[in-house]
Amino acid sequence: MALEQSLAALSLATVSADSSAVDTKTLVFKPKTAKTATPIPLFVFALTATQTPSSYIAKAAGVKEPRLANDELVQEFFATTTKEVSIASLSSALAGKVKLVVDAAVFKAAETDAVLKLTTESSGAALPAKTVVEFLKSTGIELIEVDFSVEPAAAAAPAAAPAKKEKKEKDSGKIEDAKLIGITYDKEKDFSSWYTEIVTKGELLEYYDVSGCYILRPNSYFVWETIQDWFNVKIKSLGVQNTYFPMFVSQRVLEKEKDHIEGFAPEVAWVTRAGSSDLEEHIAIRPTSETVMYPYYAKWIRSHRDLPLKLNQWNSVVRWEFKHPQPFLRTREFLWQEGHTAHLTKEGAQQEVLEILDFYAAVYEDLLAVPVVKGRKTENEKFAGGDYTTTVEGFISATGRGIQGGTSHHLGQNFSKMFNIAVENPEGADKPKVFAYQNSWGLSTRVIGVMIMTHSDNKGLVLPPRVAQNQVVIIPVGLTSKTSDEQRKQINEGAEEIEARLKKSGVRAIGDYRAIYNPGWKFADWELKGVPVRLEFGPKDLAQNQVTAVRRDDGSKYTIKLEELEQRIPEILDEMHNALLSKARNDFDAHRVKVDEWKDFVPTLNAKNVILSPWCGDADCEDDIKDSSAKKDNGEDEEVDEKAPSMGAKSLCIPFEQPELKPGQKCVKCDKLASTYCMFGRSY
Amino acid sequence: MALEQSLAALSLATVSADSSAVDTKTLVFKPKTAKTATPIPLFVFALTATQTPSSYIAKAAGVKEPRLANDELVQEFFATTTKEVSIASLSSALAGKVKLVVDAAVFKAAETDAVLKLTTESSGAALPAKTVVEFLKSTGIELIEVDFSVEPAAAAAPAAAPAKKEKKEKDSGKIEDAKLIGITYDKEKDFSSWYTEIVTKGELLEYYDVSGCYILRPNSYFVWETIQDWFNVKIKSLGVQNTYFPMFVSQRVLEKEKDHIEGFAPEVAWVTRAGSSDLEEHIAIRPTSETVMYPYYAKWIRSHRDLPLKLNQWNSVVRWEFKHPQPFLRTREFLWQEGHTAHLTKEGAQQEVLEILDFYAAVYEDLLAVPVVKGRKTENEKFAGGDYTTTVEGFISATGRGIQGGTSHHLGQNFSKMFNIAVENPEGADKPKVFAYQNSWGLSTRVIGVMIMTHSDNKGLVLPPRVAQNQVVIIPVGLTSKTSDEQRKQINEGAEEIEARLKKSGVRAIGDYRAIYNPGWKFADWELKGVPVRLEFGPKDLAQNQVTAVRRDDGSKYTIKLEELEQRIPEILDEMHNALLSKARNDFDAHRVKVDEWKDFVPTLNAKNVILSPWCGDADCEDDIKDSSAKKDNGEDEEVDEKAPSMGAKSLCIPFEQPELKPGQKCVKCDKLASTYCMFGRSY
Repeated sequence: MALEQSLAALSLATVSADSSAVDTKTLVFKPKTAKTATPIPLFVFALTATQTPSSYIAKAAGVKEPRLANDELVQEFFATTTKEVSIASLSSALAGKVKLVVDAAVFKAAETDAVLKLTTESSGAALPAKTVVEFLKSTGIELIEVDFSVEPAAAAAPAAAPAKKEKKEKDSGKIEDAKLIGITYDKEKDFSSWYTEIVTKGELLEYYDVSGCYILRPNSYFVWETIQDWFNVKIKSLGVQNTYFPMFVSQRVLEKEKDHIEGFAPEVAWVTRAGSSDLEEHIAIRPTSETVMYPYYAKWIRSHRDLPLKLNQWNSVVRWEFKHPQPFLRTREFLWQEGHTAHLTKEGAQQEVLEILDFYAAVYEDLLAVPVVKGRKTENEKFAGGDYTTTVEGFISATGRGIQGGTSHHLGQNFSKMFNIAVENPEGADKPKVFAYQNSWGLSTRVIGVMIMTHSDNKGLVLPPRVAQNQVVIIPVGLTSKTSDEQRKQINEGAEEIEARLKKSGVRAIGDYRAIYNPGWKFADWELKGVPVRLEFGPKDLAQNQVTAVRRDDGSKYTIKLEELEQRIPEILDEMHNALLSKARNDFDAHRVKVDEWKDFVPTLNAKNVILSPWCGDADCEDDIKDSSAKKDNGEDEEVDEKAPSMGAKSLCIPFEQPELKPGQKCVKCDKLASTYCMFGRSY
Repeated sequence: MALEQSLAALSLATVSADSSAVDTKTLVFKPKTAKTATPIPLFVFALTATQTPSSYIAKAAGVKEPRLANDELVQEFFATTTKEVSIASLSSALAGKVKLVVDAAVFKAAETDAVLKLTTESSGAALPAKTVVEFLKSTGIELIEVDFSVEPAAAAAPAAAPAKKEKKEKDSGKIEDAKLIGITYDKEKDFSSWYTEIVTKGELLEYYDVSGCYILRPNSYFVWETIQDWFNVKIKSLGVQNTYFPMFVSQRVLEKEKDHIEGFAPEVAWVTRAGSSDLEEHIAIRPTSETVMYPYYAKWIRSHRDLPLKLNQWNSVVRWEFKHPQPFLRTREFLWQEGHTAHLTKEGAQQEVLEILDFYAAVYEDLLAVPVVKGRKTENEKFAGGDYTTTVEGFISATGRGIQGGTSHHLGQNFSKMFNIAVENPEGADKPKVFAYQNSWGLSTRVIGVMIMTHSDNKGLVLPPRVAQNQVVIIPVGLTSKTSDEQRKQINEGAEEIEARLKKSGVRAIGDYRAIYNPGWKFADWELKGVPVRLEFGPKDLAQNQVTAVRRDDGSKYTIKLEELEQRIPEILDEMHNALLSKARNDFDAHRVKVDEWKDFVPTLNAKNVILSPWCGDADCEDDIKDSSAKKDNGEDEEVDEKAPSMGAKSLCIPFEQPELKPGQKCVKCDKLASTYCMFGRSY
């Protein structure tokens, strides 16, 4: 009989063995016994990952030389073979006849919502660890718990050893009491592994078999759709129209603007073959669309009355970077919007640059609850081929690194002169023709990475309420074996009604009525997936006409009268948004440190801060700051982020909001007078 | 002095010289004159396209041997050079001293809203043809109109010649009295040239420098956005989630499903190089995403509780076809949505196939006002690798060809077995595991092409109201030189208020207040761009508190009381939608002809019909029908569409709605019994 059916026969409902289920093993040992005595077999149940030396088993069970049992013995006691034996073979009939030896890790798992995978050679099933332990206890068989991580003769081992082991675990960033189905790395200690776990277990993203490309799963794509909807309304109010230009660019067109293409050329992907035919002219995939679009701007703009021309497209671009890719932050193909506008006047163009930048800041702050600093890029860091670049800059507290959030460029007349985007002078045809003043601006799916890094924690993803595909999950609670059918029905129906009412009122609600999981398991599962608010509905709630709400970010609880449901939930979602933003802003503010003296620069940087320093504005000095703040191989600091172990501080932006420069204030690095405060930091 | 300024000095306002402005030329001739007499120069003004032989000019002006004048003469009479002379050089002071010879085509243009482009060597300007003619007349100079298309000594020519020429013009499909700013080809006579003009002059699309790729301009992209918004709501109601998979596919994965890839292999674009590095493994750009997505379905689907999995993505795919590309219909990169779902049961999957097909039919009928026939593809025509394909089929009346509108495929278990998308059997783990039943379904920007071909006419684009970026254009009318400033202000403000009220009520309205164009020119311009309803607001409307509405499709006029504006406009838009759909449906119905006998098949096909015929269902017979209905080189018919001059009739679909088969009914082509009615036709 297959395992799942056996378990069913024992009234142990099985669950889906998803990837987070933990493997277990079942072994039967026969201790050395006097030949005349009936042996008492040891039934050992442990996590597969646990090493179970027979010497430990012997000590714990007080037996001698236990050896793996043969089929004959297993058949005698458990009516099956060694390969098919499982906990389904246990019953109270065996009490007194066999002993159970159970790995302590199984009991630990039973304190969480972990699911165990049970396998025999021919079949498999999965059960909550809780259920397994309850079942084992219910058999009445003598049960011996063994902590295999502790040597039974511990006193014999040098005292230093366990301490050393503990230290190693800490350094590894592994969370010691991690729930087995959830996040196992600590955000503060191993950010990189933590991030990988969050994006995959939070079902935001899947790794893909072409390096540097990733699948955006519905949980993250929904965030992007929400941003699209919001941003479309904003830009359309400015008269921007959406459009779609081809992804392909001919070599001739791509290379028309030299400064511009220089920045992209090493990363351009080229199509050279179609079917089995080699193409005569190789075709590039757009890394951005300036040179794709502007020849047509020249064609469409014939008179000053055709200005401003404001177009935007949502598409994907390809930059075949050879550096280490990172989900959302650095990917070879990414989704973005790129706006390209042409104006009659410099003033008109410059005004729009800032309007768009405000929209970008609002995407971060009003949708994603991520604070940003608005400013202007230095000459070194501006968009190649443009006049100047404005930016919103974020901050990843866990690594102390800055991150560019979105950029709005004023291109001046550089491209319009190159592509001849010109109109007759409105002041008279005898005056020189006017080249258009252009902007381009882009925001990519990188925003999702910044959002994840900012809010999520060691329990999993934390989704800001306004972009969460599921804002609220409703879970029936308090149903036990003593619950009457009538009450069970009322609670389930009550939960469903709450779900329906919320949906009707525009809240993105989902109900979790799966009977096979207990509430604790569900809580952990939805916490992992980042749902902002959990609603618990149980007997007490039913009796009192209320529901209990728990916020994902800080666990705060609310009791909500059902008649106030539609009013309170949106309020709680907003409270959570504000709390997330405020927490992150305090964090950013605390780690944006004003440093006037160079001696404080690197230590402040190494303490995971970004820095505001008076600066001369000189490009060479900027390079010098970067070089001088790069980690040297002298072991003087403890930075462990292997992705940027020795990165110097780049200029992030010259913030629009400036501290006042003291008269005579020198540059933080060189002897020249400072012209501005600039924000520096290690960055993504 | 530059031309535009000269014209300004003459109180001739100039307009923007857009691409539809018609080039003109100015020539000065000196007739042979007695040496003692003062010559009377001929000032010739003509369209550049008009051939102006001096013999014609001589005849018309009654002079001898006119020759092009030299600079000296031009300077003497017109105070400028031969290269700079223009109508701006004319004035009443020249009356009696020179003669004007004006191309009849200029007068013809003045009856329309055409704009003429005036150029001298150093400058240029544009004026409505009306204004030009009025100005020429206002000078008082003797004016001689010459029809250069008619030989002055017509009687001498053989009588057959002009008739032949007329025939040639008709065959060419040129519209004889075409407005010069608008469409110049006749939809019925030269569909291909007409279509090119519609998509470009209607500002739907721009040709691009990579062959087979086109730019979707805001006018067409808005249609796509509207479809996206509508379709997203529909599929989300079925539990479909949006996602994004990478555009790149490794060769190994692409080629996993043999039958499937065989259909796409010759059209796959390959990236082989990034920057200056050759890639070790060549990477394909997705032609569709079955093989991209399904390995991950296998990973994500672990239990029957993970089913159904319903994902959709909006993206672009690339099929590097070497056949003749056609805007919207056959392009190398195109935008589409592709839905991919996996189900536990065949019934669940099959039900969804039809739900999606209904959505596709509704996109056509409820949004684009295009009627379709739902049915199933034959085995020959189904999606490679799937079980069966359902389709919505449209009809292009002007060419009599069918067009595939959107397809919803049931893939059966073919892909799930290939990619191992399987779950344990819910009826018991001892039962065989269940491979998922899959569907895929796609709708592309081709819909826009079908919409254009169906509704547009010889005046330009006709946009169905529900997908038009601008649904209503408001144009102030009746303003003349006699209009008082007060009334002019009231009319303009009244028009603006109408615009504002409509926008507020959710109607996509735009006002055209450009002072430089007269209403007639604006009417033609907005008709060209397909705006569904034009609102005219003039002195009479102002006095009677009303506005006049004119429908784009049939010119029907409505007088609307202003207090009923917000109610009536949506009603009129709906009336227009219904009228468009009903007209197109009648057309499709009239050209879907039931043919039971083979002798009637080809003649009916050649009369621009699609055909419903009883058919045996045999694939070889289907091929035979195609071959036998292809045009032979025997000159027996008059088909002129060079894109498909000799195409045979393909099976378009087996319609769900079937005529009743008579007992013993034979197949239209072979001797076997018919099993069904099948729709055949030439197609895109």
